[in-house]
Amino acid sequence: MPHTKATHQQTKLLNRDLVLKMIFEHDEISRAEVARLTKLTRATVSDMVASLIGEGLVEEIGFGSSIGGKAPILLRLVADSRYLIGLNLGQDKFIGAVVNLRGEIKETIEMPVDGIDGEEALQLVYHILDQLTGKGWQPLVGIGIGTPGLVNTQEGVVVNAVNLDWRDLPLASLLEARYNLPVSILNDSQATAIGEFVYGRTLSSDGSLIVITARHGIGAGILISGRLFQGDGGGAGEIGHVVVQENGSLCRCGKHGCLETLASASAVVRRARALAGDYPGSSLAASSSAITLDTVRQAWDAQDPLAEQVVLDSARYLGASLAGLISVLNIHRIVITGDMECFGKRWLQAVGESMTAHALARMAQETILEFGTLNFKACILGASAYMLLESYSLLFLNPAE
Amino acid sequence: MPHTKATHQQTKLLNRDLVLKMIFEHDEISRAEVARLTKLTRATVSDMVASLIGEGLVEEIGFGSSIGGKAPILLRLVADSRYLIGLNLGQDKFIGAVVNLRGEIKETIEMPVDGIDGEEALQLVYHILDQLTGKGWQPLVGIGIGTPGLVNTQEGVVVNAVNLDWRDLPLASLLEARYNLPVSILNDSQATAIGEFVYGRTLSSDGSLIVITARHGIGAGILISGRLFQGDGGGAGEIGHVVVQENGSLCRCGKHGCLETLASASAVVRRARALAGDYPGSSLAASSSAITLDTVRQAWDAQDPLAEQVVLDSARYLGASLAGLISVLNIHRIVITGDMECFGKRWLQAVGESMTAHALARMAQETILEFGTLNFKACILGASAYMLLESYSLLFLNPAE
Ligand SMILES: [Zn+2]
Ligand SMILES: [Zn+2]
Repeated sequence: MPHTKATHQQTKLLNRDLVLKMIFEHDEISRAEVARLTKLTRATVSDMVASLIGEGLVEEIGFGSSIGGKAPILLRLVADSRYLIGLNLGQDKFIGAVVNLRGEIKETIEMPVDGIDGEEALQLVYHILDQLTGKGWQPLVGIGIGTPGLVNTQEGVVVNAVNLDWRDLPLASLLEARYNLPVSILNDSQATAIGEFVYGRTLSSDGSLIVITARHGIGAGILISGRLFQGDGGGAGEIGHVVVQENGSLCRCGKHGCLETLASASAVVRRARALAGDYPGSSLAASSSAITLDTVRQAWDAQDPLAEQVVLDSARYLGASLAGLISVLNIHRIVITGDMECFGKRWLQAVGESMTAHALARMAQETILEFGTLNFKACILGASAYMLLESYSLLFLNPAE
Repeated sequence: MPHTKATHQQTKLLNRDLVLKMIFEHDEISRAEVARLTKLTRATVSDMVASLIGEGLVEEIGFGSSIGGKAPILLRLVADSRYLIGLNLGQDKFIGAVVNLRGEIKETIEMPVDGIDGEEALQLVYHILDQLTGKGWQPLVGIGIGTPGLVNTQEGVVVNAVNLDWRDLPLASLLEARYNLPVSILNDSQATAIGEFVYGRTLSSDGSLIVITARHGIGAGILISGRLFQGDGGGAGEIGHVVVQENGSLCRCGKHGCLETLASASAVVRRARALAGDYPGSSLAASSSAITLDTVRQAWDAQDPLAEQVVLDSARYLGASLAGLISVLNIHRIVITGDMECFGKRWLQAVGESMTAHALARMAQETILEFGTLNFKACILGASAYMLLESYSLLFLNPAE
């Protein structure tokens, strides 16, 4: 019966994936623990592990502590047995890196963007990848890219990235043809969310997480039960352009009063410059055109009144938006990352207070708000890890085996 | 190897579920089509169908049209081969119904609630179910309940239903013990969403849908890829108590300016009464205490200025909240149901315009906004269908077979 045979083959591949996933998600783990977590038999797990050791993906690293009986042998992923490339196109420079299986960055290349776009920006991507693929990190198993704008991840197409002037760019197939490697394309906020999820903290691998990136723009990445949620159109988490202030400032999207015009890092600087005249006593008032995120941060640390207003306003509006977000998703953990992190715990607390004031008390109380741990690296690591989350079979050099 | 054997057994049950799901989701379908959609072999499908016909769940209903070759025999679910009970506790009365497998309501019982709560409200639930289970609709395979408030569906516990004064009520286990049937408990907005998803329209069964219920309160139910999404705490979609107007009216939750205070049916009536003095020319102004939802609707149809203000305000605030919702979820289809439907197409259009004004143009354009088709029945049908969506094995009278 062909059906039954297919099922056996599939079962074997799924089991390999499952065992590898468990080892990937734990620093060190015994065969018995893998069997317990995967509900596979000890015999099946031993078979799979033997095969993974044969492929150089897994190693034994000595004995763990025993809870009565023989101490178990611990298994670990061989961190440098495979490499991935991650690319972050969401900053004012393009950053590419070679990453190993533990999310350790082995080599980084940065290129200033300086307003280039279209074909030139694409050439810059090639330039970075030519170098990173040519440095002899082998075996290299995939390329992941986090880009601003709307992405169709399934098709590997950048639907619309305004700043880069890319429309319907089939980036994945272009890169796959050029480098002969699997390529995945994600929105940068979504990639950042995966990075924080996988490498940023200890979190159960089937948990849910919201990651807010607050830089020039504001976006959210949403993981539901350990998988990236993109919605029907790929744009899930695009909260930066929801109007939160009627008749507010003009936004780059053409509307007025978007969240980005009040709570992004650019907004804080722009508003501090605009309001400097109202605060003659402010340390920032002397030369409003010289105000930068860094000078606002210094003034905020000194409790300067102008800095207090613009930074607390950003917290208030972001918190109100988070109230909407948790009411829709009821996900208990929110990580905030990006330049706005510079305003520290006092800002984060103000965000939390505004969230609580705008949501059901119970829902707000359940929610943990914290800063990310990876900064700009989150996007690179997340872009490269995305393909692993979707299928660990990427790591099998001969998956037909 | 016990593992392989377990897999075979599981595979068989999963395949049965899959075949039944396909027949459930199609009015009429051939074996060949089931095989194509499930990717099972024709032989496997034939085996399963034979077994389903043996159990009385499926019947052959003659020949379909042929596309060359022999015309295929069509299969259909036997609508009255199993019955479910659905209960809607989210209105000012409790409504229970016996439902068949096509979502046809066979018998309904309504009981006024009249402000009773706690143990009395529970007794009323028993009273309704005692009658519905005693009427001889057999085989009866499960009871589904939609209740206001926060629900832990996994545990079958009503965590907090303020109006009914239920806290941590283990409703599922109480009813399972009393009636010896599987019981599921859902939030009423979530149950309503399932009802509209399963029985309300033709929608691919793995699609996503947001259903907004706007009655006394406002809540959303979210289906992602054909499954109810409840979030970490079970409260996903609780958008009614997000503050959308700073320093607005006092809400029953204790905060000011929640969406419910502006866009629910109760809010429209309350606001019309409060603002009647400002509109001496309004047909509603003569006796503000006599204003009801129905008189506001009549005035709205006559384009009365007071009705225009309160109804358009409700549309504006609901639309702005939907802008947030679609930016988070990017789900392309939103159904609105509940008493606010009485304001018709012109109101729905105003909601859509406000949504578009408050969201990224692209995201709003992709989104289809429409009224539900089932009204209060959606909650009953959704509550009863929930268990089927989770597992069709509910319908197997002898699942160990
Ligand atoms: Zn905008
Ligand atoms: Zn409220």
